[in-house]
Amino acid sequence: MENFEFHRPTSYYFGVGRENEIGSIVKDLDKHKVLLVYGGNSCIKSGLLERVQKSLSSAGVAVVSKGGVVPNPRADLVYELIDLGRKEQVDFVVAVGGGSAIDTAKAAALGIVNDGDFFDFFLKKRQPKDCLEIGVVLTIPAAGSEGSSSAVIQKEIDGHFYKCGLSSNFFVPTFAVMNPELTKTLPAYQTACGTVDMMAHVMERYFTNTPEVSITDRLCEAVLTSIIETVPRVLRDPDNYEVRANVMWAGTLAHNDTCGVGREQDWATHALEHQLSALYDIAHGAGLAVMFPAWMEYTMPHNPMRFAQFATRVFGLSMDFEDPKRTAKAGIAALRSFFKSIGMPLNFADIGAKEEDIPQMLKLLGVDSERTIGHFVPLNRDACEAIYKIAAQYSY
Amino acid sequence: MENFEFHRPTSYYFGVGRENEIGSIVKDLDKHKVLLVYGGNSCIKSGLLERVQKSLSSAGVAVVSKGGVVPNPRADLVYELIDLGRKEQVDFVVAVGGGSAIDTAKAAALGIVNDGDFFDFFLKKRQPKDCLEIGVVLTIPAAGSEGSSSAVIQKEIDGHFYKCGLSSNFFVPTFAVMNPELTKTLPAYQTACGTVDMMAHVMERYFTNTPEVSITDRLCEAVLTSIIETVPRVLRDPDNYEVRANVMWAGTLAHNDTCGVGREQDWATHALEHQLSALYDIAHGAGLAVMFPAWMEYTMPHNPMRFAQFATRVFGLSMDFEDPKRTAKAGIAALRSFFKSIGMPLNFADIGAKEEDIPQMLKLLGVDSERTIGHFVPLNRDACEAIYKIAAQYSY
Repeated sequence: MENFEFHRPTSYYFGVGRENEIGSIVKDLDKHKVLLVYGGNSCIKSGLLERVQKSLSSAGVAVVSKGGVVPNPRADLVYELIDLGRKEQVDFVVAVGGGSAIDTAKAAALGIVNDGDFFDFFLKKRQPKDCLEIGVVLTIPAAGSEGSSSAVIQKEIDGHFYKCGLSSNFFVPTFAVMNPELTKTLPAYQTACGTVDMMAHVMERYFTNTPEVSITDRLCEAVLTSIIETVPRVLRDPDNYEVRANVMWAGTLAHNDTCGVGREQDWATHALEHQLSALYDIAHGAGLAVMFPAWMEYTMPHNPMRFAQFATRVFGLSMDFEDPKRTAKAGIAALRSFFKSIGMPLNFADIGAKEEDIPQMLKLLGVDSERTIGHFVPLNRDACEAIYKIAAQYSY
Repeated sequence: MENFEFHRPTSYYFGVGRENEIGSIVKDLDKHKVLLVYGGNSCIKSGLLERVQKSLSSAGVAVVSKGGVVPNPRADLVYELIDLGRKEQVDFVVAVGGGSAIDTAKAAALGIVNDGDFFDFFLKKRQPKDCLEIGVVLTIPAAGSEGSSSAVIQKEIDGHFYKCGLSSNFFVPTFAVMNPELTKTLPAYQTACGTVDMMAHVMERYFTNTPEVSITDRLCEAVLTSIIETVPRVLRDPDNYEVRANVMWAGTLAHNDTCGVGREQDWATHALEHQLSALYDIAHGAGLAVMFPAWMEYTMPHNPMRFAQFATRVFGLSMDFEDPKRTAKAGIAALRSFFKSIGMPLNFADIGAKEEDIPQMLKLLGVDSERTIGHFVPLNRDACEAIYKIAAQYSY
């Protein structure tokens, strides 16, 4: 196990009706004016936005609201939010929505108190020194941003979309209100995309070269197993609060690093996928369903026993002691079957991606013969190309 | 799943040599004078206490040290620490040791800033309104107090030892320094006692009447499984840093409520055991090894399927679909076998407890025909008596 630091001070308010407590939560933090960031019309139609605004106002907290966050959230809106937040002198930012709203709120909270272009932080040109605090009312269990230290924002520069992530302790939300009721109206496709995202967050941590990490291995397997046993029930019975609650909490644990401390993590698949969702504006989870099994096929020979452990412990497959690689491959096949069973795409054709765009993906990825991504197997340009081709050519 | 709040802001500094960072950690918290609480001579002999004092002094933090904490920590020392802390005007308390040192530090931190008898808080006569912050340098993975909101202190009143627990958000430590190297010198018996304590913390949460808690069930099973697969290796190979590290982190996760949120918890076995360790001054873990299987035998008929789940998922036993109770019983037997294999006692005789003292235990427990303990099965006086008798009469 590697040395680590773990600090996740987020206060979670989990359960029915908790969004009505947000006014008193923010007031107790001694904040007075909130920038409320949200996405489309669903939280207006459902009355959620109004409930949140009312709770804040009733507690004497002033509110400035702005919607318009889109999936794969854009820098353009962040700039607008920064201007608005500065003009209105807000002292706190609240996101109502899923990962896109939360990440937009994180970027705005950073930009409001730092001069210059906030995207420079995402391009790693400078380090954040200050940030407003952030609160969350979660409506989509998927990105795990409600408990994580990271955010991903996309910006068009010279005709190319750059999708960049930033991790900072400033980005760990102060609180997250999580009411599983709010997820009942999520369409099946979005629920499934969220599922893949959660599983990917665990798997990026699971495939590691760090030896002797029994406790976090077991935790990873626990979260994956719980997702696999509850999500099909959510899809069959979308109004079931209990299974929605399990999935929602699993999404937080998948990404708040409970499953990742003390071990080398990979994250190549997220980088590979970001180029797909940037180029084709597809859901991140859908792109991950295509890319993760492809990454697994390519990297499995590096450590077949780890893949066999995944197959047996997560999918309950029998270990083939004569040929562990057979078990390893069966685990990858089981993952693809699970993704397919919840309506996810499995290859380029399913998401409208084109094999001839691979050179462009590789360019945006910034890999070459020297510069690599990932840690389980460091992937240079050729390796990334090979993985994209597996994803393009997989047929079923 | 039940509504819950979860807030665990402790900063963990985990790994080799982290105790040397304590000076800068405390300084960054803007604290200036620390009351350092420790137990016996082991941390003096090993040089740990000196390293901690030196790190603090080098950072410009003043230190007042006092040792003498004993297992099943006593109120007497807490009163002395309160007087010392007030006299010296300390603004922070650091425990160096295991659960006894941490719980003593917590009680002292509470008493220093509150007038009147600190034990009134433990007797639930009043509610804490303020408390000094607490830091930990952990040397014994067991009690989980480094990440928990609770403390247990024992006081002699009218010739009887009252062992009382108090849970408060004030008791969640601000930081915990966890260096697995420091646990290498723990005797096998103490390692084993710690193991039982950790497992009991998970099992108190596992046996619940709350339905549909897949995610926390899986997490409980993950922590238990990891403990069961690593502790025997620790006992065979006490100098193995890697397995020590897994056990140490498992001990924190077992009790910081990661495994317990959103579900009814039991805690009867802890109450039953506290009377044993109060009467005979035995290690808490040893008492739990005697009491937990006895509690299980008594309560199993309430929900055999939950015990069968425990048996199959934690101990890998085959499910007997014709008679799940057989699997449930086999799980309890497997737990006893595991305890025995790591050198733990299994009945009253093993710990020098006497069946004729049961009436006294029941009196201290404060149960009668109406007043019960526990939630999985609320236990009145007769039920508690029956469980003590199982523990007394079990033979192997």
